Amino acid sequence: MQRNMKRLLIGKPLKNEALGGEKFGVLWGLPILASDALSSVAYASEEILLVLVPVVGALAYRGMMGISIAIIGLVVILAFSYRQTIQNYPNGGGAYIVAKDNIGSIAGVTAGAALSVDYILTVAVSISSGVAQVTSAVQQLKPYTVEICVALVLLLMLGNLRGIRESSRLFGLPAYAFIFGIIAMLIGGFVKLKTGYRPPEPALQSVEPLTLFLMLKAFSNGCAAVTGIEAVSNAVPNFRHPSAKRAKTVMLLLAGLIILLFGGVSVLTNTYHVVPKENMTVLIQIAAEIFGNGVMFYYITAVAFIILVMAANTAYSGFPMLVAVMAREGYVPRQLSMRGDRLSFSNGIFALSAFSILLIIIFRANVSSLIGLYAIGVFISFTLSQSGMFLKWWRERGGNWITKALINGFGACVTAVVVIIIAIAKFNEGAYIVVIVVPILILLMTKVKKHYSAVREQLRIKPEELGQIEIEHNLYKNRVIVPIESINKSSIRALRFAKTISDNVTAFCVAIDEEEGKKVKDKFAAIRTDIPLIVKYSPYRRVVEPLLRFIESSDYDYQRGDMTTVILPQFVVKHWWQKLLHNHTRVYIEKQLLKYKHIVVSVMPLQLKDDDLVLRNMEE
Amino acid sequence: MQRNMKRLLIGKPLKNEALGGEKFGVLWGLPILASDALSSVAYASEEILLVLVPVVGALAYRGMMGISIAIIGLVVILAFSYRQTIQNYPNGGGAYIVAKDNIGSIAGVTAGAALSVDYILTVAVSISSGVAQVTSAVQQLKPYTVEICVALVLLLMLGNLRGIRESSRLFGLPAYAFIFGIIAMLIGGFVKLKTGYRPPEPALQSVEPLTLFLMLKAFSNGCAAVTGIEAVSNAVPNFRHPSAKRAKTVMLLLAGLIILLFGGVSVLTNTYHVVPKENMTVLIQIAAEIFGNGVMFYYITAVAFIILVMAANTAYSGFPMLVAVMAREGYVPRQLSMRGDRLSFSNGIFALSAFSILLIIIFRANVSSLIGLYAIGVFISFTLSQSGMFLKWWRERGGNWITKALINGFGACVTAVVVIIIAIAKFNEGAYIVVIVVPILILLMTKVKKHYSAVREQLRIKPEELGQIEIEHNLYKNRVIVPIESINKSSIRALRFAKTISDNVTAFCVAIDEEEGKKVKDKFAAIRTDIPLIVKYSPYRRVVEPLLRFIESSDYDYQRGDMTTVILPQFVVKHWWQKLLHNHTRVYIEKQLLKYKHIVVSVMPLQLKDDDLVLRNMEE
Repeated sequence: MQRNMKRLLIGKPLKNEALGGEKFGVLWGLPILASDALSSVAYASEEILLVLVPVVGALAYRGMMGISIAIIGLVVILAFSYRQTIQNYPNGGGAYIVAKDNIGSIAGVTAGAALSVDYILTVAVSISSGVAQVTSAVQQLKPYTVEICVALVLLLMLGNLRGIRESSRLFGLPAYAFIFGIIAMLIGGFVKLKTGYRPPEPALQSVEPLTLFLMLKAFSNGCAAVTGIEAVSNAVPNFRHPSAKRAKTVMLLLAGLIILLFGGVSVLTNTYHVVPKENMTVLIQIAAEIFGNGVMFYYITAVAFIILVMAANTAYSGFPMLVAVMAREGYVPRQLSMRGDRLSFSNGIFALSAFSILLIIIFRANVSSLIGLYAIGVFISFTLSQSGMFLKWWRERGGNWITKALINGFGACVTAVVVIIIAIAKFNEGAYIVVIVVPILILLMTKVKKHYSAVREQLRIKPEELGQIEIEHNLYKNRVIVPIESINKSSIRALRFAKTISDNVTAFCVAIDEEEGKKVKDKFAAIRTDIPLIVKYSPYRRVVEPLLRFIESSDYDYQRGDMTTVILPQFVVKHWWQKLLHNHTRVYIEKQLLKYKHIVVSVMPLQLKDDDLVLRNMEE
Repeated sequence: MQRNMKRLLIGKPLKNEALGGEKFGVLWGLPILASDALSSVAYASEEILLVLVPVVGALAYRGMMGISIAIIGLVVILAFSYRQTIQNYPNGGGAYIVAKDNIGSIAGVTAGAALSVDYILTVAVSISSGVAQVTSAVQQLKPYTVEICVALVLLLMLGNLRGIRESSRLFGLPAYAFIFGIIAMLIGGFVKLKTGYRPPEPALQSVEPLTLFLMLKAFSNGCAAVTGIEAVSNAVPNFRHPSAKRAKTVMLLLAGLIILLFGGVSVLTNTYHVVPKENMTVLIQIAAEIFGNGVMFYYITAVAFIILVMAANTAYSGFPMLVAVMAREGYVPRQLSMRGDRLSFSNGIFALSAFSILLIIIFRANVSSLIGLYAIGVFISFTLSQSGMFLKWWRERGGNWITKALINGFGACVTAVVVIIIAIAKFNEGAYIVVIVVPILILLMTKVKKHYSAVREQLRIKPEELGQIEIEHNLYKNRVIVPIESINKSSIRALRFAKTISDNVTAFCVAIDEEEGKKVKDKFAAIRTDIPLIVKYSPYRRVVEPLLRFIESSDYDYQRGDMTTVILPQFVVKHWWQKLLHNHTRVYIEKQLLKYKHIVVSVMPLQLKDDDLVLRNMEE
């Protein structure tokens, strides 16, 4: 039943060969890779205003315009920087790879850790913002915000466990629908102004002057608009031939779109003097202002919601792939590199879902709280990736290397400055969490790597040693101990099996008192066997200690390679609830015994029949 | 470290012989067994008023007096009924035993299920009420009510895991302190009235008339005062010789005390016209009225709190003992009958704590919400126990049997009526939960019993068959399969061990593709061995299915008793976190293979060395 359930939800297993999948050109590559970068249009301007309005009042709009121009400059710099990465890493130039190749493994791990954190935040922020758009339009849903968010993450998880490749074009459509919607809103907004509409002037009070620190804080919030831009350079191999050229075109188009949409929404927010409200996002307020309560208002709500869910989905392709690459190199648990039935990295998908749901619950799906943690990770990885490219040009000194190094070097400097700005300006708003978590992650990843290296070293056999290995004769001795509680069909079966694997078999019984011990001895004596029975008394009702003492007391040469096998019976029940009825002594004893390298634990299953059947037979 | 921690919290392990412990006489037996019954004085009157005051206003006080007289009548009937049980069950006449012996096993299980539920409720109600007394006096603690309650349950759990016997006299003192406190309050209250004090008349409005249904509902709440009275009859063997006689004396004294304290508090509540308030329990209001804000006020608060915690503690001796008895007879999971290091029934103690914490959290530690579920279980067990006694007299027809049968029969009838009253009057307040839960528990317990009987039947060897059993020769064949992933020290070790237990060994490798398969084949060929290697390709990356197919394909006669042993290596790591780094394929494969009765799984441990050590050696 469990298997059928899984089939229904996830689909039937796929073969390895199905991994190829379809590749895309510019037309579909753009929308598929753009959703993360474009979606921030839905909240970036609002998050800038949220910092400024309560403090400087109406002056906030002038501040926002300045910040928007700075962010657009950042987009231009990054676009040119990343075009160079695309050209040189046609197999996908994720920050982890670029930093590791050109700077060193620690830089790679740092980029990987920072990116992982930001992928998780991307899911939390995008889903929370997407749901906020919907609850702005349908206020009745407001009390269920967290529940809706969690349900959406679970849906995304399920979709990604099925494998997303089969519907990649489907993911392109909403991006176009969103681009169309925002452009329509921009046109509608400007036409309305031209035809004489004057938006109401909000009564805003200035409490304090517009300080540099305030501007930097607002800028840090706005930097969310830049995240997702690296998606194109990660995905170069997914483009049709000539893939690098197509990817570079998409990179330029994407930058142009961000500038148009983000810049346009900022200008609209400015001219319409939209004030951030508790119950309604800025984007939805603008839409209401321009389109009233008509079809286009709901269209904007719908596409803003969908593009934000899509943006969360990009983290679902990025995160599992990133941790799988790091897992293969031994920096994160190896289970994360295993593909599930549908060829998706199931464990990575589970991890991403669990962490983002945790964040959503902790921050009550509040975008403004989450935004404090956001973006710093992305900019750390930007910096490392651009620095890596810079070092590459510097070392190689090929044709045109000075121009190339200048472009990436400038990108690295600018993004490094942004990292510092975000870390300082948003430290108290949550950036400190990231500042603490990322180094801890780096430390953990190094420890994990060390462990895997140590394990490999311990197991390794040098190729030249292979020829000296001999497994021909019955070289070592093996003694078998069968712990028994009483004489029943299970213990008889275990003793019989013991005889087939060794001539040195001992039955071993731990009794609570003399009376119980005598009962077992008498019964055992009735059996025709040459197996000796050892009875020990344990006042503490312990089984493992007497057993271990008995094993150690023998004169076997464990150093040489002799072994002791302990046979433990295990009931296999028909129904899950029956498991609860059998104490897990077997598991406990096994765990204790396996601490000793000369002890092998053989588990002998005993299939229990259906209760009703047995009892009916008994009565007959 | 884990072991040291446990030692510190729980104490060092005790031997079985330490079980004897000290017995008590009347002087200490009374307070030790009385806390549950006496503690309800702290809230019973209040819970009666809470039903009446909001509906009938000042008329509530008259209603309360009537109900109190009815409850005192109930106490008298039960005291005489239980004295007969004590006389006839000197080994402890718990309702489970009495009902099972005299009516039948289903009646016993019913009493057991009902009592278990009520023990859990006793902890939840007593702790919640105790904390309410304290937060009445110290209002600042109010917001942390649930947290304090949970912490107290955990403390009780810890204390009981240590074993309570060592401090039994310590448990007697608070009961005397409480008795003294309440009597002082009664005297103080009446003296104050005699010296001319006139309590203020509260302005209470009557909304509806005092109906019979309302009276019954209030009576049901008041019945909480009767719970705990059965404790004496359960504990007969803990009394010094002559134990039955001493227990009967304690039973009478206890009934007298309940009548004095509960009756007295009801009269005081009536004359002082105390109105139940949100923030202050009735008991603490009376104390404040009589003693002002002086020492005695805090003394009453303190002893009321302590006696209620003690009352919860009685459930900690009752519940684990009850479920242990039922576990021994196979009605609940057998683990519940095992004594821990300190000879207490640890699993029962854990279960009781977990369930009562759950109730406290669900009902936000609100006594009035919990009281809806309370008492019905106790009265079901009263009814069954008294009916059992009645049937006993009826069957035996010894001397004086008619009088004895009349006493217990009357007790049974009265308590049965109370069960019906509670079930109807409090059905909507939560009694329906108990009405649903108890039958479900009975059903589960019967199923559990059936399972254990079926297991015993399957394992059983008749004594006359013992002589025919022969385990002398190497009767059956055993083939060994060693699944390997690659040729490393772990697989070589497994292959060597395989050779010691069988002459028929096969190495088995599941490869993802031809390339990987060839690599393993080449390496294997370099080893000097006669073990054949089988390589299978699995496009779905599955291991278990090809292995099973291979096992089934052989021509072994599994029907006859031949076995296949599969050797699985298991990494044993130094630190707990390293466990997370190894995928649990071993556990998964083991679980799948153990479904087949002819497959034995041998787990071969491989102790990993310290990471740093290995890597340092490697570098040298």
